[in-house]
Amino acid sequence: MDRTGLINSMDIKSYDIEQLELLCEDIRERILEVVSKNGGHLSSTLGATELIVAMHKVFDSSKDPFIFDVSHQAYAHKLLTGRWEEFDSLRQFGGICGYTKPQESEHDFFVAGHSSTSISLGVGAAKAIALKGESNERIPVAVIGDGAISAGMAYEAMNELGDRKYSMIIILNDNEMSIAKPIGAMSRILSSAMASPFYQRFKNNVEQVVDHLGEGAYYMAKRFEESFKLITPGILFEEMGIEYIGPVDGHNLKSLVETYKLAKSMKKPVLIHVQTLKGKGYEIAEGQHEKWHGVGPFDRDSGTSNKKSSIKSATQIYTDALMCLADNDTKVVGVTAAMPSGTGLSDLIEKYPERFWDVAIAEQHAVTSMGALAKEGFKPFCTIYSTFLQRAYDQVIHDVCLLDLPVVFALDRAGIVGEDGETHQGVFDISFLRAIPNMTLFAPCSEKAMHRAMSFAYEYKHPCSLRYPRGSFTQIQLPEPQPFELAKSQLLIENESDILLIGYGNGVGRARETMEFLEENVSLLDLRFVKPLDTQSLHVMAQKHKRWYVFSDSSKAGGVGSALLEFLADAKIVDVLVTSFEYEDAFITHGNTKVVEESLGILPQQLAEKISL
Amino acid sequence: MDRTGLINSMDIKSYDIEQLELLCEDIRERILEVVSKNGGHLSSTLGATELIVAMHKVFDSSKDPFIFDVSHQAYAHKLLTGRWEEFDSLRQFGGICGYTKPQESEHDFFVAGHSSTSISLGVGAAKAIALKGESNERIPVAVIGDGAISAGMAYEAMNELGDRKYSMIIILNDNEMSIAKPIGAMSRILSSAMASPFYQRFKNNVEQVVDHLGEGAYYMAKRFEESFKLITPGILFEEMGIEYIGPVDGHNLKSLVETYKLAKSMKKPVLIHVQTLKGKGYEIAEGQHEKWHGVGPFDRDSGTSNKKSSIKSATQIYTDALMCLADNDTKVVGVTAAMPSGTGLSDLIEKYPERFWDVAIAEQHAVTSMGALAKEGFKPFCTIYSTFLQRAYDQVIHDVCLLDLPVVFALDRAGIVGEDGETHQGVFDISFLRAIPNMTLFAPCSEKAMHRAMSFAYEYKHPCSLRYPRGSFTQIQLPEPQPFELAKSQLLIENESDILLIGYGNGVGRARETMEFLEENVSLLDLRFVKPLDTQSLHVMAQKHKRWYVFSDSSKAGGVGSALLEFLADAKIVDVLVTSFEYEDAFITHGNTKVVEESLGILPQQLAEKISL
Repeated sequence: MDRTGLINSMDIKSYDIEQLELLCEDIRERILEVVSKNGGHLSSTLGATELIVAMHKVFDSSKDPFIFDVSHQAYAHKLLTGRWEEFDSLRQFGGICGYTKPQESEHDFFVAGHSSTSISLGVGAAKAIALKGESNERIPVAVIGDGAISAGMAYEAMNELGDRKYSMIIILNDNEMSIAKPIGAMSRILSSAMASPFYQRFKNNVEQVVDHLGEGAYYMAKRFEESFKLITPGILFEEMGIEYIGPVDGHNLKSLVETYKLAKSMKKPVLIHVQTLKGKGYEIAEGQHEKWHGVGPFDRDSGTSNKKSSIKSATQIYTDALMCLADNDTKVVGVTAAMPSGTGLSDLIEKYPERFWDVAIAEQHAVTSMGALAKEGFKPFCTIYSTFLQRAYDQVIHDVCLLDLPVVFALDRAGIVGEDGETHQGVFDISFLRAIPNMTLFAPCSEKAMHRAMSFAYEYKHPCSLRYPRGSFTQIQLPEPQPFELAKSQLLIENESDILLIGYGNGVGRARETMEFLEENVSLLDLRFVKPLDTQSLHVMAQKHKRWYVFSDSSKAGGVGSALLEFLADAKIVDVLVTSFEYEDAFITHGNTKVVEESLGILPQQLAEKISL
Repeated sequence: MDRTGLINSMDIKSYDIEQLELLCEDIRERILEVVSKNGGHLSSTLGATELIVAMHKVFDSSKDPFIFDVSHQAYAHKLLTGRWEEFDSLRQFGGICGYTKPQESEHDFFVAGHSSTSISLGVGAAKAIALKGESNERIPVAVIGDGAISAGMAYEAMNELGDRKYSMIIILNDNEMSIAKPIGAMSRILSSAMASPFYQRFKNNVEQVVDHLGEGAYYMAKRFEESFKLITPGILFEEMGIEYIGPVDGHNLKSLVETYKLAKSMKKPVLIHVQTLKGKGYEIAEGQHEKWHGVGPFDRDSGTSNKKSSIKSATQIYTDALMCLADNDTKVVGVTAAMPSGTGLSDLIEKYPERFWDVAIAEQHAVTSMGALAKEGFKPFCTIYSTFLQRAYDQVIHDVCLLDLPVVFALDRAGIVGEDGETHQGVFDISFLRAIPNMTLFAPCSEKAMHRAMSFAYEYKHPCSLRYPRGSFTQIQLPEPQPFELAKSQLLIENESDILLIGYGNGVGRARETMEFLEENVSLLDLRFVKPLDTQSLHVMAQKHKRWYVFSDSSKAGGVGSALLEFLADAKIVDVLVTSFEYEDAFITHGNTKVVEESLGILPQQLAEKISL
């Protein structure tokens, strides 16, 4: 058989099960080839291979909206829709995105990098399809993981879907572990699936019998069915008004194809519960929890990582500091929303399971529940990626800052995040947090500064937020950090020049590196607090230096430069020229962080040139 | 009986049912007396009277966290905790807040004005109680409405609660209508409660029998109970791991007290389903949907409103304009998240039920589903209060702006909202939206300008957001508005003075009013677009006028003034002094809008004085 011919999804419709199985082998091979080279999301995408191939067999992505939740599991879909060759460039600058992206292919209905949006998108698509009168030709198919379904917005969407009864299919990809281990009542419900094949048979039998008995019997039987139900994972969905089918073996193409066809024919909201094995087909990764979720380049034979950085990550420094605090004070508590490993909280959860919680993909609940703990006298550390705190913006305002509660928001992955790209960039936090009354914003610029920043956070009696980058702080040597004190900056380097570089967080290192390329000896201020500002020092700086350059890994609109401009305007100082090197007003693409930064013109050498102009 | 003595909640514990019933009468009388005079939330709070009195009978708000969701139903609680006399000042400046507020009383565990936070807060409190070893003395009691439970964060919290099994009570106050009519699958589940008393009896009988049969039988019976369940509204909660009791008659104090006691003794998560009648005790309001939810002062005998403004509200103007667009183009669609009357969308939902949706309290789902409709070629108008869009910030970024989809965000209640106060002020939207790439921000300043702004929004092919105030635009006469054109301001009044007033949205009227108090003839610019700015005109303005004053009903940090400062810095213009009259960095209290504005020093006369200094 010509296996290269298999890779064109347009032909899939004619393939038999055996051909589809061979195709799955090829897809897995291609994914392993590229991901072992480029890094990427491995185990979820391997596990979803048959699930996706069967989708292309039964549905048509050129008209049916294929909606992949989070979409890092959708590599097979990319390979099947004209991106087999280009897949070599996965997650590289200018190359194939690690997530679905309509600009890349018309077969990608939507962009997705944050979790739990798929059912809402499906409902929106279903409404559109109904309005266009295309219900007989098109149907939205949403693929959502057992982790993603724990988020509130999935429930909000099901609540409307089950009521309005749009024709739509939800494929619940249950690999029993989401990114980390399964959490919450929903995961328990799903894991009770053992009982379920019996239920399906029972239900089918009832329906078959009823079909042969005519109308009166149908009514009675329906009443019977509606009065009694066996406990299955499906009851929850059926109660919500969504038909449940499952569980289905997610690696059995025949079952998948048949089930999809059945669901398609039902013309109502149907959830298909598919059980898959994470890492399926790459033995080293099979059934692994977090380790093989997102990976860097690795050796396929041994499964070992190809490059190990010896530099401590900012995440690791943060958790080291937090562990110290937790060791010494039982009032220190903390939360992560399904990112125990990414945020480094897993060690704390293991050591202090009664004080550190993973609440599943539930940022809103994470923040608000920590508000209550603060009210009760505890010191909560809400550890959330900058980009994911966007999910709990209202809760930060309404459930923490309004009562001026001492919750610490530790924002990991602030700034450019590299290969994950535009959905994950941590660039807006300063702009959206700075407007909130009672909120204090600060940032460390190095390992030592992080420990001092954490001491400040621990002692501080109000809401506050610190941010730190993905990977490590810039490694240039900086002067010894002073202890953190509210609204106090630190003048790191002083010179007579008119030029003052002002760094915030990881921007301090970038500013210091930029100095290496400047001919003039300039001054360098570690701002430390963007709210409240160190107005006293800034007044002095404004006297001495008339050209300020701002370095911060954050959006320019409403960011650090903007805060400084507000200060100058309030102080009626008009003779200082502020230039901000924060990010311009555009979404930032994926790729190696340095390469992306170069494309934005914000590498130290590039910035030095701008200053020298 | 000395009925005045009844009003001290500290004595309630000793009251018999009859005394409690009399107390409820007094409470209702007091609520009607004050709300008919001051306005406020009427029907929900009347309906919850017995439910709350019974809470004070069984629990102790000085130690048990009483957590009222949204908390506009908690007037009875306020009256029972030392605020009987002060209640006269309800919702007035300096007076009692319309929501729970810990600064007002130690019996108020938390602030709440936004919906669906109560279960998260309860889980947080339960964690704290467990850590403090106080589980035998304290238990969190959350009161949540059938409307509020549709929001995702309630589900996120139940997902953790049902898994970790904290001792906690959720009182589901089911008045079958939330603010508007019941929406979504969850409301359908609750309304199937008819079948439920039978189930409760059945379950109790099984348990009683089992108790007499010893261990082996217990095992068998449990298996039986777990294998078969009657369909009740409780199954959904029990599947989530939360015990369900109900429904209970919410106006029968004896049932309520007994049920609360039972739930308290169970030492696990329990949801008590209480059915109440909105407006109970005030016949004119009984069972009414939206009309009596939030009211202005009214005549108790006739139920008619005491003052009717003849001025058209900005909301009404917006919906008039939207209706025109919807009449003429079937691609125009829209959504509200449980605020059909507040946002004025009810007329559109009634006329075009297939194109305008109320998706329940579900802002996240509202935004994301509209993203999908935009992707399918429709023109969605997401009509959400400024303060509630905070609930869907990530969705605006991730599901609309990343794909540059033409969704219109119509932000009602932008600026100070008056008596609702600090939880509802619409002050942050410019700061948090301005940082998002692809987003366009504009605002109309009058009725005519709104129609023109809506024409622009309708034609525009990218994400955009317009904002307008609660109540009406300032009524001062303004020059005829030009059509809205992207990034074009309108110079309304031109004078030679160094002073330029720059207004945005309703700030234009405020600026015009301020001019009445100025001796100098100054210029007035209607900015119209805060993103993108009219850089061309602003360059000209910067040449002619060196003192700019900014008028906008928005937060200063990252707001309109900040945008102008960023422009000036980018343009390297250093000789213009910008003074922003936007809101300072503090939460803004409740009260009559004019009174609140006076306290902030932003009435036209006050601003004129600041300019003249």
